[in-house]
Parts: sequence; structure tokens; C-alpha cells
Amino acid sequence: MADSAAPSAILYAQSGGVTAVINASALGVIEAARRHGRRVLAARNGILGVLGEDLLDLGGLGPADLEALGRSPGGAFGSCRFDLDPPADNPAQARRVVDVLRAHGVGVFLYNGGNGSMQTVMDVAEAARRVGYPLQCLGIPKTVDNDLEGTDCCPGFGSAARFLATAMREAGLDVASMAGNRGRIFVMEVMGRNAGWLAAASGLAQRHPADPPHLVLVPEQPYDEAALFARVQAWVDRLDYCTLTVAEGLRCADGRLLAEQEHDRLGHVQLGGAGAIIARRLHARFGYKTHVAVPDYLQRAAGHWVSATDWQQARAVGEVAVERAVQGDDQVMTCILRESDQPYRWRVGNVPVAAVANLERRLPADFLDPAGYVLSAAGRRYLAPLIAGDHAVPCPDGLPDYPVLDLPPVPKMLAPYDGEPAA
Amino acid sequence: MADSAAPSAILYAQSGGVTAVINASALGVIEAARRHGRRVLAARNGILGVLGEDLLDLGGLGPADLEALGRSPGGAFGSCRFDLDPPADNPAQARRVVDVLRAHGVGVFLYNGGNGSMQTVMDVAEAARRVGYPLQCLGIPKTVDNDLEGTDCCPGFGSAARFLATAMREAGLDVASMAGNRGRIFVMEVMGRNAGWLAAASGLAQRHPADPPHLVLVPEQPYDEAALFARVQAWVDRLDYCTLTVAEGLRCADGRLLAEQEHDRLGHVQLGGAGAIIARRLHARFGYKTHVAVPDYLQRAAGHWVSATDWQQARAVGEVAVERAVQGDDQVMTCILRESDQPYRWRVGNVPVAAVANLERRLPADFLDPAGYVLSAAGRRYLAPLIAGDHAVPCPDGLPDYPVLDLPPVPKMLAPYDGEPAA
Repeated sequence: MADSAAPSAILYAQSGGVTAVINASALGVIEAARRHGRRVLAARNGILGVLGEDLLDLGGLGPADLEALGRSPGGAFGSCRFDLDPPADNPAQARRVVDVLRAHGVGVFLYNGGNGSMQTVMDVAEAARRVGYPLQCLGIPKTVDNDLEGTDCCPGFGSAARFLATAMREAGLDVASMAGNRGRIFVMEVMGRNAGWLAAASGLAQRHPADPPHLVLVPEQPYDEAALFARVQAWVDRLDYCTLTVAEGLRCADGRLLAEQEHDRLGHVQLGGAGAIIARRLHARFGYKTHVAVPDYLQRAAGHWVSATDWQQARAVGEVAVERAVQGDDQVMTCILRESDQPYRWRVGNVPVAAVANLERRLPADFLDPAGYVLSAAGRRYLAPLIAGDHAVPCPDGLPDYPVLDLPPVPKMLAPYDGEPAA
Repeated sequence: MADSAAPSAILYAQSGGVTAVINASALGVIEAARRHGRRVLAARNGILGVLGEDLLDLGGLGPADLEALGRSPGGAFGSCRFDLDPPADNPAQARRVVDVLRAHGVGVFLYNGGNGSMQTVMDVAEAARRVGYPLQCLGIPKTVDNDLEGTDCCPGFGSAARFLATAMREAGLDVASMAGNRGRIFVMEVMGRNAGWLAAASGLAQRHPADPPHLVLVPEQPYDEAALFARVQAWVDRLDYCTLTVAEGLRCADGRLLAEQEHDRLGHVQLGGAGAIIARRLHARFGYKTHVAVPDYLQRAAGHWVSATDWQQARAVGEVAVERAVQGDDQVMTCILRESDQPYRWRVGNVPVAAVANLERRLPADFLDPAGYVLSAAGRRYLAPLIAGDHAVPCPDGLPDYPVLDLPPVPKMLAPYDGEPAA
């Protein structure tokens, strides 16, 4: 049982889609907590672990464990896609959250996630406020989608962007190598349901106008097949091949996903994502030979190819969240503030979670050229520093060495909670 | 015009699907040729460049160019998928090949490719023999499929294997992070139309039996949906998720590709590859949430994640091809001979191209466990050394720096050839 003094333990949890560097944020939290003599726990699978009182004791992690934790992709403590109910709508759930935090002497709740997770930060704060429990709730930003408001960039994005720009540069060399006389098309479909940040970032592969990717398609720009096909044809006429980056969330002029439109058109349930659809249509129209890559989780889990800038920022937003908590802040999210583009300088600030929760930041229109298919100078200026720097991972047998950490569960103090599915 | 002495120039060309290290073989050729004072040319787009007299002068490449060439993925001089006709069937084509070689004083023809390309080596040799032209023809092995006979392994394979095993280990951590109660399936579809070498190599990601990939599906083992689904279900029961590597060339018991079977079943033209089909069927059967990654060209172009062993072997088979030619060999392919597994020791040997051309080497049955779904100890013993070692690429701005080489064309000496499409 926690002591009778004000609760001081820090509970850290990860939420939403994970990234290659979210564990660097965990590392930052643990290091800062130890500097301040604070006990730090983790909840397994985000807020679900709080509801289930499924907590992990991080006290036993030694320096080598911590170093290894910090370089591992994925969420070391598990993540979830689960939203709390508004406390007023589900007071039992809100009470359960506070009961668990109280039972373990938690005075600081740190939630590492995206825009939806910042709502959870607010909901936990409200749950505590309703019963007068002294709790500080802070958010730590994370998303490969880079779509959080209130921060110049989101930890996790830079590494995914580095992976995709590298992939396009390399696959582009492969495509360029092959002779053909019918045209060759390479499409890489990247993450981004609503925002084209990752698609645009693949444009960093381009050093000269004729370099891959020749065409970048983002959700912010409605799909215009006639205009696109004319451009593809022009590139094939010039180079005999053409490379495209397509965001998964590409939409038609009427706002429907390209995949929905294809479904209506062809009457079949799953015909692949936007990349496969465009490749199929290009083949049907021109007879081009097409290849489609779908990196899927590879792009957000590439611990072997992390951007050092991204890694440092991920660690810093975790570290500073603890510092802010120790200084008494509440309901803020740490964020990255850009001080200059070149040389790139940044620092960590913070922003009220209420100004961030549930909002989505779209790719600025001027980050692509006026026609909308190529990364612009403004886009490059913003994106380039985010992918810079190696963060090498030891590879004793050729493969990255990611640890299996021994994380003892914290003994449960409460009766089981049956209000939600277990994590 | 070539001088009147015996032709001594070396012509090097790349053929078939390119790899992350084929240019290391080019580097080995150029370095060895220079040591022997031999002029070395490249044909653009393989044998098509010979027919078209589309040759490149490699004499001007300085040390920095060579170093950069050696680390670049893709085929620096272009590749092709083009087979010569048998010289007896198309004597005009055969004469054209010899005319071009003669015009440029070529005494050694080096062809860097897979099993089909070794037939080209024999055809060029036969073309020269028919007209009494003194020519040595040698093969240099290359293929990510690792399906060449006569060599312990194929340059290009180890790097693709390293990429895929790394990808599975990383994506597996991502999948494991996410809580769910309907089961989560991750499928990675890898190259391999007829052979499961790359699929099996993804099994190197596994350190413990419960690590990804849980199930590896290769073309050599007929697809047994009932058996597979039972295993997937068992993993989901145990872990709540399951990861699969699926070779693109997976076949049903009747020998048809899974994609062909799906086409007959659902009556639609393109329903994705084997990975997407299995994911769709698992979702239909169990309601599992599925994700499918298709690395496509990313797996064979990953210059940023080359295996040092693979790179060294690629360079060595190029180098030794020149040495063998200087010593008078003809119609041999250089090959890798394994001297021991642990410590791994290898050397370069050679094998008659006639013993290699057009043959495909399948994955040995004992490289998977008896049930056929997991890499066996024998498979691991063979595969593990091939992915070992980093071969770092400079990344000044976060991205691998691959050069654009200035390769002046060799002035043409002959009238244009209109027998084949130009490269």
C-alpha cells in the first residue's frame, strides 16, 4: 500500500500505434524519474492496464536494460487503441482508474500517444478531479503520422520518414536498372489515412527532378486520375519508368477513399489499398508493368534505421514530461519547438493537452509543388532535419539485438475489475 | 578500332533482377582488371547493350567513384531480362554479338546473373566459336532467390535475407505491442516464385519458439489451409497474435499458384498475392484483424542494410572471375564454396556454366521443421552466416549516399543493329 504522504509515483503508459522510438520516450521518463528519486511504474497496454491493475515494476531495470529498452522498436509495455468513456457518462470506470492510481501511490500519470490519447489524459485528470484525488496528468507526443497539433513534429515520424525516403531511393535505383519497352511503374503505398506527411517525406529521396519519387499522392489532394496519368505517361516517355508514393488514405474528389470507390465500381470486397488500385488501373490503361510495395508495419518499426534526431526528441519529450511534472505542471503535453531550420535547432516545450486532443494537423499545401506531386522547397526545409543522423543498433549476428526485458508485475491490491475487456 | 593483337579487353554486363550488392561484383571486376592492366567496358542493360553496341567506358572511374559504385544497390549499368536465341537458330544475332565484341577488342565476356543468364554465357561462347573468334566467357553469380546450382550461396541473397529477417523481427515487436481480443495477424509476403530461400531466411529473426515468424510458408511445401489455420489459431490462442512469412510463389497441392486458385474461386483478375489472399481468408474464417506487408523491391535493393558477408562474396566472385579469365578459364561461373559453418569460412571456386544454366535449386526439405513451418537447426546453420556483418553506407543527410557516376559511352564502331529492340 502506498504511504500516507502525497502520492508521488509516476505511472507511464503507451497508447495507439507504436513507433520505432516510443521506447526512447520510456527511457527518458525512467531516467528523469530516477534523477528525482521517484518510483516509476508502467501500465501494460496503456489505459487498459490501469483499468485491469496490470502494472509493471520498472525499478529493477539496470543500465544495460535501459540502454536496450531505448533502442527497441514497438511498445515495450504494450499499447492499446482504447478510449475511456467521458467520466460523467461512466463514473464507475472513472472511479476504477483513480482507485488503481491511489492504490499504487501514483501522483503523476504520463500517457505517451497521439491526438486521441491526449483525450485520455484529460479524462484521467477529470476522473481524479471528481473525487478530489491529487494527480498530475501529462501527455508525451508520439505518432508516425506527424499529425499532432501543438508540436513542430511528432516523435516516431522522423524515423518512419527516414525509412521510407531510403526505401524509395533504393527501390528507385532497382527500377531504373531494368530495361523495358512497355514502361515500368513502381508504387510504394505508405501510411497516412488523413495526412500526407509520410508520403511527402518520401520526397526527400529526390536530389534531382528526375529522381524517384516522381509523383507523390497525399490525402489532402483529391485524386485526379486524368492529371495523374498524364504525368505518369510523361515520365515513362522520358525515362521508360515512373515511381510513385501513394498515401493509403488517398481520396477521390467526392471525399471517398479510393478503395471505397473501387469497391463500388468493381463490386468486390477487398481489392487492395490505394497503391494496388492505381497500379492496376495504370496497367489496364497503358499496359505498363507494375510493382507495388506496401511496407506496412516495416515503416514504423524500423529500429535498425532510426533517425538520430527523432530518437533524441523522443527521449527528450519523455524526460521533460517528468521534469514538468516535478515542477508542478498538469494537463500539458511536451512538444518540440523548432528554433531554426539550418542549422537545425530545437528544444522541448509544452502545450495544454486541451489544445491538442482529437485535432489532426494536415500537410500544409505549400509543402508540395503547385501541381501537388513533388516535395517543395518549403516541405524539404521542414522535413530534412527530422530524418538526419544514424542511431546505430548493435547487430551481433547481423540482426538488431532487441532485448526481452524482465518486467516483474506489480502485485495487485484491488479486486478484479470486470467493467472492460482485459488487455 | 582494336589493335591487331589478340583481343584482351574485358566486357562486363549485368542481367536479370538486380540486388543490393551486384555493383560490388562490378567493383571486384574493375579492380582485378586494372591490376592486370586490362581495359574494362560495361554493356548497358546486359546483353541488349552488346547487341545495340551500347557500351560504357569504365576507365575514367577514380577511387572515390569505385568505392561509391561498390556500395550502391541496383544495377549501375542497367540490367535486362532478355535471352539470346540459340546461335544455330539465329545466326545473324550470334554474328552481331561477335561483331560488337570484335570491334571493341573484347577477349573476355563476363556476365553477372542467375541461372538464365548462364545460358547467355554459353550462347555467347557458341556464337564466338562458330566464327572462330577467340573469346573467353565466364559467369558471375547473382540472385536474391539463392536458387543457383553449383554455388553454396548466391551473392545478393544474404543482404535480402538480412533485410527480411530484420523486418520480421521489428514488425513482430510492433504487432506484439498491440492489445486486442480478436486476434491480430501479420503477414509478410516475400520474393521467391519457386524457391523458399528468402521465406526461410526470415526465420532467422526467431530466437525463441514463440518469436516471429511463427509460421513460414514456402513454395516447396503445398499449401494446406486446414493445417495452417489450425496452427494460426493455436498461436492466437496462446499469444493473441500470429506472424507469418509467405513466399509469393506459394502453391496449392495441385501445383497451381494460390493466386490462380483464388482467381478461379472468386472470378476476379488481380486479388493480390499469396500474402493478401491468406490474410483475407483468415479474416473471413476467424474475424482476425490482419495486416499485410509486401516489401517487394525494398527487400532486394536495401543497400543501407547489406550483409557484410554478402558484400564481400559479391566482390570476390567478380574479382576471381577476372583472375580465372587471365589464367585462361572459359565457360565457368565463379561460385562460393563453404569450408565450415562455425566459424564460417568460405572461398571462391568455379563450376562449368553448363552445370548451372537453367537449373533451379530448391530449399532442402530439412531446412524447415518436420511440419514445414519453422526454420530448423540445419536451416539456421546454413543461413545464419550469410546475413552477418554490417557494411555501413555514408548518410550525410540521413539517407544513403548513392552516386550518379559519369560513365562516358564508348564511341560506336558499327552500323546500328535492328534485329532486336533497343535497350
